[in-house]
Amino acid sequence: MASIKVHGSPISTATARVLACLYEKDLEYQFVLLDMKNNEHKKEPFLSINPFGQVPGFQDGDLTIFESRAITQYLASAYASKGNQLLSDDPKKAAIISTWIEVEGHHYDPPGVALSYEYLVKPLFGLGETDPAAVAENEAKLGKVLDIYENQLGKSKFLAGDTFSLADLHHIPNVHYLLATPSKKLFESRPRVNAWVAEITARPSWGKVLALRNQKL
Amino acid sequence: MASIKVHGSPISTATARVLACLYEKDLEYQFVLLDMKNNEHKKEPFLSINPFGQVPGFQDGDLTIFESRAITQYLASAYASKGNQLLSDDPKKAAIISTWIEVEGHHYDPPGVALSYEYLVKPLFGLGETDPAAVAENEAKLGKVLDIYENQLGKSKFLAGDTFSLADLHHIPNVHYLLATPSKKLFESRPRVNAWVAEITARPSWGKVLALRNQKL
Repeated sequence: MASIKVHGSPISTATARVLACLYEKDLEYQFVLLDMKNNEHKKEPFLSINPFGQVPGFQDGDLTIFESRAITQYLASAYASKGNQLLSDDPKKAAIISTWIEVEGHHYDPPGVALSYEYLVKPLFGLGETDPAAVAENEAKLGKVLDIYENQLGKSKFLAGDTFSLADLHHIPNVHYLLATPSKKLFESRPRVNAWVAEITARPSWGKVLALRNQKL
Repeated sequence: MASIKVHGSPISTATARVLACLYEKDLEYQFVLLDMKNNEHKKEPFLSINPFGQVPGFQDGDLTIFESRAITQYLASAYASKGNQLLSDDPKKAAIISTWIEVEGHHYDPPGVALSYEYLVKPLFGLGETDPAAVAENEAKLGKVLDIYENQLGKSKFLAGDTFSLADLHHIPNVHYLLATPSKKLFESRPRVNAWVAEITARPSWGKVLALRNQKL
């Protein structure tokens, strides 16, 4: 039995972020599917794993943590010798990766999540019509972020250097969703962003997450 | 001349977070004060340090990074042997610190910043009246977060264990501001949160940040 357990749903971008990391690190794990439609993540026993009631939850032996970006950083450092290197032992390279991890969490993610909510979550869960004003506002915000990415990707192949890192990986689940919406134009209109999106979504790890999603749904 | 340079303003919570960390680590640094009222942070040369145009920017020799929480993690790991330990070499303890660092960034900070904006930034910069509806909404959000903190602080003295860590430090600047507003009731009404707030804001490092703020303003 694998010592690593992931509690969540593969349609959740945060859960998918952790799963992609597990496949990059070539780690065995047990997936505990939560029935989010019946709010299983808002009740015990899940609240004892994550008191905020959000997926994923994560266990590795006697360790219990949550927050997808903390989980991926744990996997990348605690299992540094397994699979693909996603962080760096060099403090200065690690600092650049940390910077772009923060950029994803604080600049990319808020408008990215708002757009996937408008275009995908609302129709899927019957939460009303896509709001054109919310789309316009968040596309403008995301466009400004992607202008900076376009410039950054002219300096290095990936966001935090010439090798793929957690900073890139954290984007994959939301980028994948937005590619199925009209907001994909924001990526396609920026050549270096477009090439980066193609590269990161073609990772074999991401293919395995999609295969799991198809199998569990 | 110190190799470390911080570009920002001590009234910015993100700048203050980095300064508190530098004092905890007992590191020499050079402070480069930006004239934010004249939007110096939105122009070159600062945009070459942080293309998002937000303070602080940070340099250490040939390293240039931004995002306050990436800077503190760099300082805590690259200068592990200096000053107070703010992270852990043990991967599982580090993972718990990472989890609560993410909680601060994604759960505490948004309502905390919204409340300091309503009560302090708006009057200071003549941006209109404090909006009671925004206050009520964000106090409700912050209250839920602090309920979870109250429970967590019954399990360990600090958020991520029995020793002070970056997860606690990251809160200090915003907590300090909110203690000067009616929102302080959210801390005072929760005994363990109240004791934790008293402890973290009494750190000598924070006293030094406040002294610098008084001297620069």
